[in-house]
Amino acid sequence: MKKISLAVAAVVALSTSSVLAAGHHWGYSGEGAPEHWAELNPAFETCAKGVNQSPVNLRGFVEAELAPLDFNYTGLATEIENNGHTIQVHYAAGSTLKAAGKTFILKQFHFHSPSENQINGEHFPMEAHFVHADYQGNLAVVAVMFKVGDENKALKKLWRQMPGEEGKIGLASQVKAEELMPEDREYYRFNGSLTTPPCSEGVVWMVLKQPVSLSEAQLKQFTTVMGQPNNRPVQAVNARPILQ
Amino acid sequence: MKKISLAVAAVVALSTSSVLAAGHHWGYSGEGAPEHWAELNPAFETCAKGVNQSPVNLRGFVEAELAPLDFNYTGLATEIENNGHTIQVHYAAGSTLKAAGKTFILKQFHFHSPSENQINGEHFPMEAHFVHADYQGNLAVVAVMFKVGDENKALKKLWRQMPGEEGKIGLASQVKAEELMPEDREYYRFNGSLTTPPCSEGVVWMVLKQPVSLSEAQLKQFTTVMGQPNNRPVQAVNARPILQ
Repeated sequence: MKKISLAVAAVVALSTSSVLAAGHHWGYSGEGAPEHWAELNPAFETCAKGVNQSPVNLRGFVEAELAPLDFNYTGLATEIENNGHTIQVHYAAGSTLKAAGKTFILKQFHFHSPSENQINGEHFPMEAHFVHADYQGNLAVVAVMFKVGDENKALKKLWRQMPGEEGKIGLASQVKAEELMPEDREYYRFNGSLTTPPCSEGVVWMVLKQPVSLSEAQLKQFTTVMGQPNNRPVQAVNARPILQ
Repeated sequence: MKKISLAVAAVVALSTSSVLAAGHHWGYSGEGAPEHWAELNPAFETCAKGVNQSPVNLRGFVEAELAPLDFNYTGLATEIENNGHTIQVHYAAGSTLKAAGKTFILKQFHFHSPSENQINGEHFPMEAHFVHADYQGNLAVVAVMFKVGDENKALKKLWRQMPGEEGKIGLASQVKAEELMPEDREYYRFNGSLTTPPCSEGVVWMVLKQPVSLSEAQLKQFTTVMGQPNNRPVQAVNARPILQ
């Protein structure tokens, strides 16, 4: 029963526009701001009641022997979507990630600015989330931090095709998900949730330690289209160990 | 807000008789069995909805540098209670445990037979839970496994004073909590919940690796008073790392 509800939550999360269509206007400011998410819909109650929520401030690490992430990203991106909350790139099946003892499939990746997770109390200007699910609906997210510096070639291809208004289009020029990842795949691991309603828990989080760069202009292009910060504030860590 | 609700949950958990007094008959069999807990009271919904529940089958460990548990148990046990679910020994303030970066205070300890947690798929015949809280209401439980062997001297003092019916009595001869712990304090750590309604999450779990012994007669004395197994079945681990 838990597996099924997690799978349902995953589908909802992967298609945020369906939530919007139902008239529940969650967002990042005003009446739809993160502190009100749980009031918008009974299905969002975990956003307030959960004590294992994401994002978090990553600190107070427990040293651990974390197995290397085993990426086998052979699938292709299909569409790029502006869903009003983020810019999201949808993936066709075929890209797998072996992590935390399971095999997950890459479903989509999307962006937040500023970063949602913090590392030792610091935000990064942008964070990408690579969202994976296994066949039982268990979710795993790989997060990549961006710092301002050189232009990012993969982002350049993506941003050229970024819809300025809500809607989605097929990708004309391909972007491989791994082009957006740093060379070093060392990571922090913790147990968390979706960072958007319904804030479902049971999500394996793996935040890569090495950031990648994007230019000031590329950052501005994203924040201008979003119109406002699209990060949920950090949540209490409570009883969770944060591994490194 | 989360901190407050956790603190309230702790108080409820530490005084299960108040839940009983409200007429919600949770237990371990029949209509009050664990699979029905969430139906008995809306306040128990986490028992069904939570994906970070206890107990668990401890396996698939992540090797980690876990800080030694820093016990400073100077307080005294005050009362021994049969609350219909377990035999629970209440503690006066003064016993602290430094663990997981926080300082917790021992509130009570109690027993389950068979064990609630499993280690590599195996139950032990009995498990003791030492329940601690910090000033913000965060909970930490140290679990000790029992195997059948030599008579346990600390248990002998306790069981002599065990109420055969529901009720509690002052302890005439003192038992130090540490007398019930093994010499080796190496432990497994995971993030879980209360194992009884309301199944509140955000609980630091530390299961000591080395079991202690009790005699067959001592085990029987406990199970006879309980009248039935008082263990919640193991719950899905989901996204949680289990550290050792």
